[in-house]
Formats: sequence, structure tokens, C-alpha cells
Amino acid sequence: MVELIRRTLGGGIETAGLRDDAASVAVPGGGSIVVSVDSVVDGVHVDLGLCSPADVGWKAVMGALSDLAAMGARPLAALVALCAPESESGDGALALGVMAGVAEAATTAGCPVVGGDVSSSGGLVVTVTVIGTTDGETPVARSGAVAGDVILVSGPCGRSAGGLRQLRAGTAPTGGLGAAYRRPVARLAEGLLIRQSGAHAMIDVSDGLSLDLHRLADASDVGFHLTHIPIAEGATLEEALGGGEDYELVMTMTAVDARRLTERLAQAGLRTPLRIGLITGDKNERRLGDHELERQGWQHHIG
Amino acid sequence: MVELIRRTLGGGIETAGLRDDAASVAVPGGGSIVVSVDSVVDGVHVDLGLCSPADVGWKAVMGALSDLAAMGARPLAALVALCAPESESGDGALALGVMAGVAEAATTAGCPVVGGDVSSSGGLVVTVTVIGTTDGETPVARSGAVAGDVILVSGPCGRSAGGLRQLRAGTAPTGGLGAAYRRPVARLAEGLLIRQSGAHAMIDVSDGLSLDLHRLADASDVGFHLTHIPIAEGATLEEALGGGEDYELVMTMTAVDARRLTERLAQAGLRTPLRIGLITGDKNERRLGDHELERQGWQHHIG
Repeated sequence: MVELIRRTLGGGIETAGLRDDAASVAVPGGGSIVVSVDSVVDGVHVDLGLCSPADVGWKAVMGALSDLAAMGARPLAALVALCAPESESGDGALALGVMAGVAEAATTAGCPVVGGDVSSSGGLVVTVTVIGTTDGETPVARSGAVAGDVILVSGPCGRSAGGLRQLRAGTAPTGGLGAAYRRPVARLAEGLLIRQSGAHAMIDVSDGLSLDLHRLADASDVGFHLTHIPIAEGATLEEALGGGEDYELVMTMTAVDARRLTERLAQAGLRTPLRIGLITGDKNERRLGDHELERQGWQHHIG
Repeated sequence: MVELIRRTLGGGIETAGLRDDAASVAVPGGGSIVVSVDSVVDGVHVDLGLCSPADVGWKAVMGALSDLAAMGARPLAALVALCAPESESGDGALALGVMAGVAEAATTAGCPVVGGDVSSSGGLVVTVTVIGTTDGETPVARSGAVAGDVILVSGPCGRSAGGLRQLRAGTAPTGGLGAAYRRPVARLAEGLLIRQSGAHAMIDVSDGLSLDLHRLADASDVGFHLTHIPIAEGATLEEALGGGEDYELVMTMTAVDARRLTERLAQAGLRTPLRIGLITGDKNERRLGDHELERQGWQHHIG
């Protein structure tokens, strides 16, 4: 999207911050907001054969909120645009189901839904815009990583992808992997503490640990050397590297700040982050152990 | 949508303001924003056989901005979620065309596009979220009309619907009606002056003068008595009453303020508003001349 916007919007339109998960907007009268939008399309991002309409609504909200988490922002409000096919029974069951999931996720995250739009369409599309704040502090960008930073991830990866595999195979989801696919959770509380602990750069794992880490390195003009890949129980290495929608957070910071963050998260009763490697100064170095790490993950194709 | 949100979100979620065109959100650190979202779906709101991809992008942005105009707000930023089918040629022509129209409209309105999302989908859906401000002043709601207010509309109605009719018939659009359909313009400058002139209530004509005026009256718990319907040249009475997407603004205010508004608009080089009737205290009175005015216009069905 970033490239598409840049190519078409060109000069005269604000493009700073387009590389980040969410954009900052100054508000007259003081203050500023961070905003992001995400669409979930049936048949592309989700499969209504594998999850319920409410799951789709939930996933759409959490996916958008994860972009706020990745900036270290807390949510203020959400808007939901629901495009749904007319149902044969005419009872609006699909739309109502989606909105029930939207409501559950919004309530869970403490993010009021303040507006929306409903349309008929050929296929189900749920677009969620979220508005958040960092309460006057600077949001964490993707672009701040510096050589020597440690790289951490907020939890083991591959849960959602593993859950999707199990659901497709019809095998009973174990270890919560099916739930991880159907009901992912944006790491909002973690994102706040990560920002407050001095993170230099952050991104959420929406498209795959590998691909999203490459994006962070691209934005920061740095390289990385990974020494550990935390694989969720029941998931594969490939799922951990290439599976999106786990919404774990990847961050870089000094080793001292990383220790402080670990303490803070533990004190807050949250999971402690896992150290997976180091940021290096050579932007062409993208290593996992002794091998180059390919850009594995969900690529958004258009055209 | 409002009803759907209310039914599903219930208690605990902010529902105040859901009846208005845009919702107000307080921003920590001072200030507040008004926000709105709108989707344009090919085959439902637009027909790619009758307008270009760039027209669709333009219409999506202007439709969303019109909700800000109806609050008397000026735009700060927009976010665009584009869901488009993969094209056979794989060159992304459809997506690029839509984004070109988005860029034109955003530039025309002075509204930077700060973020977005692109997905593949079965059909084209363009969802635009707009964020605006009233610079510390109170936005104009739909609900403030009081008995004795004069009702004005910012310009003659039915242009877009007349243009659509001509385009469908393959007759050469005259009087700019085809352009009115393909390139409608949100009345942002007018909306600001209307708010500043003390309007009690305002709504934009997105679904039809009749239907949108009924909505304003419903929200204000009042009736109305119309004496004039300003029909755009080349349009029919039915198109003026029931045709949406003209994005003219309907407002109510005292007769004194209406005269002041007319002067201000003229001084600004903008069209002067047309007085079409009076607000009455009987909420069951919804008259055009001696007859009851039916709710004609674009109804959003879902289910």
C-alpha cells in the first residue's frame, strides 16, 4: 500500500510515516493521534468455512488494534465499515454475527466503536479504522533500530498459522492454536510498556516474523543476526517464520532497557519477551544463524 | 448501521453521536476530532461501466468528506482501504486508477492521505475514513432543529441522479450532470460557514433530500413543512427528492442567521443557499405543500 500511495499521491500529500504501522496526525488545540486502517476479506484473509462471522469481526478489530500496539499507543476509538452479501434468509445474520465479534473485541480492548457504515457487497469485507494516542509521548517507529540493539519478540510465533493448518486439516486444535487463529489478541498493554521502556523500533507480526523483521530493518537501514526463533508449541519453524496474524510485537532496544522491560512486563503480570538476536550495521546482513533469512510471510499482492 | 451497532454493541460502548454524520472523539492533551467512514462498492454504489476507476476513488473520498462538511468540520487526514480484484493483466491498473482519483480528490479538498491498506477481493470496495476538526467549536448535529427554524439547502438537488440516468441511457450528459455523478464535490467551505453562522442542525444529502431531511427531523424530534424543492437543471422532481450523492447540505437556523449566512456565502464567492421550508413542532408533520412527503431515497439494506 505504501508504494501504491507514494506512486499515485506523489508530492503535496503527506507521506511521512507511511512506512509505520500507524500514522501520526497533529490535532488543533494540542495533542495528536495515531491512526491506522485494516481490511479483512473473506476468501483472502479469512475463510468463513473455518471461523464464524463473529470471529471475522473480532479478527478485523484486533488486526487494526495491533497497529496501535506496535506504535506503543492506546486505543481511543474505532470505526467499522462492513460490506456483506445479502443473506438468502434476509435476516442479516452474517452482518449481525460480524458486529457481535466486533463488539466483543472492542469491549475486550477497551476501544469504543464510535461510527460505521454498512453496505451490501458481493463478498464479506470488514474494514476497521482505529484511532489511538501515546499521551503526548513519541510513538515508536519502525525506523529507529540501531546497530547493537537487541531484538526481542513478545512471545513465540506461528500459533495462528499452526491453528489455520489444524483447522484446515479438520484435526482438533490443540494448545489453543485454533483459538489463536480465530481470536488473536493485540498486545496493547505490552506495546505501552515497550514504548515506555525506551524501544528504538517496533513492528507487529502481522505478515510473518521474517517478513516483518525485514521491514523493520529496511525502515531502519540496518541488518540483523538472529540466533533464536521462538516456535509456539504445536507450530512449525516455517509457521513461526512465515505465519502472520500472531500479533506478537518485535522490538529493538539496548540490552539494559531490555532487562528493564522484562522486569516491567513481569511485574504487570504479562509474558516476558524473548531475545532473538542483534541489530547489525550492515543493511545487507539478514542472517538466521549462518544462513540468510528469506522474506517469508504473507505478501499483499495487488495488480 | 446505527441500528446495527446499537443492537450488537449495546451497553458499555459509546453510542452517543452515532446518529450524526460523524462522531466526535476527545483527544488527550486537548482538542477533539470528528471522524467518519464510508464505503463505495462497485455494483452497489457505483458502476464501473459508467465511470472510471479514478471516478470511484474520487467519489469515495468526497462521500466521506461530505460527512465532515455536514458537521461544519474541516478535514485533517484521510485513510483509504482499497479492496480490488486482481486484474487479468496483473498490472494493477484498477488499483492505480482508483488511487489516482483518491489523490485528486484529496488534493482538491486539502486533505492529506496519511495511511491505507490494500487487499485483493472479489469485487472493488473503497473505504475512506476521514478525520476532521471544528477547531474547538461545537460540531453541528442533526438533532438541533427547533420549531420555527427555516430550512435551507446549499444548492439544487438531483444532479447526480440525473447524471446517472443520462449515463445509463447513453445520452450525452448535459449541464454537467454526468460530472455531478462522476465527480461530486463535498461542500466543505459551505459547511464551515454554515456552522459559524449558527446553524441548529445540518445533514448532507447523501441518500436523497427527502430521506435525509426525514432523518434530520427524526433526530431533532420535529416536523417540517416544505414549500420549495430546488430541482437541478436537467433533473426531475423525483431525482431531486430521492437522488443521493449530490452532497448538498441541508440546514436549519433562525431566519436572521439565514440572512447572515447568505451574505457570508456570497462574500466568499460561494453559492447562496435556497430556503425550502420551515421546521414545525409536530414531529408527525412531514409535509411538502399539502401532501405528506414520503421517505424517498437510497436505503441501505442489509440482511
